[in-house]
Amino acid sequence: MNAEQALPVLVELTRGGIVESKHRGAIAVCRADGTLVAWAGDPELVTFPRSALKPFQALPVVESGAAERFGFGDAELAVCCGSHNGEPRHCEVVGSMLQRADVPLTAMRNGVTPPIDETEHARYTLDLLDHTPLLQNCSGKHAGILAACRARGYAVEDYDALDHPIQREIRASLGECFRMPGDDLVAGIDGCTLPTYGAPLRNISAGWGAVAAPSKGPSRHAAALGRLARAMAAEPWMVAGTGRIDTNLSQATGGRVLAKGGAEGVICLAIVDRGLGVTVKLDDGTYRGHDAIVPALLRQLDAVSADEAARLDALFPAAIRSNRDQQVGEMTAVFELQFAS
Amino acid sequence: MNAEQALPVLVELTRGGIVESKHRGAIAVCRADGTLVAWAGDPELVTFPRSALKPFQALPVVESGAAERFGFGDAELAVCCGSHNGEPRHCEVVGSMLQRADVPLTAMRNGVTPPIDETEHARYTLDLLDHTPLLQNCSGKHAGILAACRARGYAVEDYDALDHPIQREIRASLGECFRMPGDDLVAGIDGCTLPTYGAPLRNISAGWGAVAAPSKGPSRHAAALGRLARAMAAEPWMVAGTGRIDTNLSQATGGRVLAKGGAEGVICLAIVDRGLGVTVKLDDGTYRGHDAIVPALLRQLDAVSADEAARLDALFPAAIRSNRDQQVGEMTAVFELQFAS
Repeated sequence: MNAEQALPVLVELTRGGIVESKHRGAIAVCRADGTLVAWAGDPELVTFPRSALKPFQALPVVESGAAERFGFGDAELAVCCGSHNGEPRHCEVVGSMLQRADVPLTAMRNGVTPPIDETEHARYTLDLLDHTPLLQNCSGKHAGILAACRARGYAVEDYDALDHPIQREIRASLGECFRMPGDDLVAGIDGCTLPTYGAPLRNISAGWGAVAAPSKGPSRHAAALGRLARAMAAEPWMVAGTGRIDTNLSQATGGRVLAKGGAEGVICLAIVDRGLGVTVKLDDGTYRGHDAIVPALLRQLDAVSADEAARLDALFPAAIRSNRDQQVGEMTAVFELQFAS
Repeated sequence: MNAEQALPVLVELTRGGIVESKHRGAIAVCRADGTLVAWAGDPELVTFPRSALKPFQALPVVESGAAERFGFGDAELAVCCGSHNGEPRHCEVVGSMLQRADVPLTAMRNGVTPPIDETEHARYTLDLLDHTPLLQNCSGKHAGILAACRARGYAVEDYDALDHPIQREIRASLGECFRMPGDDLVAGIDGCTLPTYGAPLRNISAGWGAVAAPSKGPSRHAAALGRLARAMAAEPWMVAGTGRIDTNLSQATGGRVLAKGGAEGVICLAIVDRGLGVTVKLDDGTYRGHDAIVPALLRQLDAVSADEAARLDALFPAAIRSNRDQQVGEMTAVFELQFAS
């Protein structure tokens, strides 16, 4: 029972004047060249960014020529980088990508799960909408990869196999963006069945630094990363959807901060005007702490204006409330970033 | 950033051969007299049992004579001790309790929240059922307390106030069952607006030891605790509902192990034939780890038969699966209980 190696507490939740729950984790803030700028906990912690890999998994959509050939604009590219809510427009856009790339819906291997959006989830549960893979939050990523397979002339049948050429291409690009040999990435399988990769937080943040400042990342991917980052900034709703932190944060900062969550407690940021990439991993795989952590770290990085800070406070209130709206506690960030001297 | 004081890891989740997430926490196993039998982490950790207080909050329902006067049987008493799913029968039983005690629905101060049950939640979201306080998972507790107020001749208007006589009665009983002065309980407010109390895990477990062996607990409460424990064993579905761990565990052990979850990562057990009370608190306020922790601790306490262990393995599989049912990881308990010599 390795109490010794515990990551620091990043967030505390109180009730009745005592700490009731806490979330531990680690944060790394890097530039595209891999320089570590700031951190909390162990920036070398190896973890899976999960869906925060999506902008890198979308590189072939641009680089294969699929985006141009099939007329994918900001909305289509943003949903390739997103974990969408399964709201009607998300599904329409993904469906149209498949049609334009002449890929049948049956080729999708992401599985069928309930939409994240509460109303669509309810309609799904009550069989009031078709249970299709379009609803699953990764369907944009899958549609993009399938379109890239078409553009490259690859078979689409086994596009989720670790050794399919499109997956080998993604792994190699990921290594370049993360500033590490692709072979050193830890390979696993994601919930949506695609290969997924683990890396130290600082390497993941270097990749997100390249999303923030594509010209400072690997030159081979600068154009595509720039195109994808512009799409995420222009269509933040396609990256997640109504009420989601990724969308809200990007909107609150006018696209200056791009955000992408990942399963098991991950959120990555690209702070565009600062050229910084950020990775937050909560040890316990939870998300609620992000609401306290992200505004706190942006403040500590001096990366939000007073106006934006006020907007974030309104979006992410600290108060924990009862069912009848009494304040019964508080969720607060309790970490201090360490800065490289 | 108090990395030093971290509780031990109780559960690990793996993917691609590495640990992706973990849950830390503490466990205390006690007898009704407060003897500490076994533990993991700090058994003196002070936390709020939240809904795992419900059997003690239900003591006045029996002790005031309300149960007898209003004809509450096993189903009614079990739902007083439960956090129900909001399935139709749950709401029917709670509604009938209010009617029998002549308490209007408008007296309920638990608030209105979506039912836990997925289908009812969906119907709630789409406004296909009335949004009433009956649906809220604590409605049985509230109805029971209101009925006790009627039987005691107390005002029902402010039954959720810390100094209402029914709440003072509950606090005093709780102190006795927990083997500590009621004044030393940490007072907070629960999501459902009732006063809630925090205590060291070993004291909470002493209380649950008294649920397991009422004759070994405070004699003043032996009869009522026995009555409530029999109700929970007889009507496990009323304690939670379809698919819930509390219900499943009680059913899998033929009522020999009673279980009650609480918000923010708590689950308490009464191991009836062993006279043991157990409290598990996950530091991060999550629940999924309970599926691994509870079977492991029952095994370590030698408190399940081979048949029951097989049933628990089937109920709580370790495999983490992709949307297309590939095994992609595993959730495993990694603690070892320490035993008092």
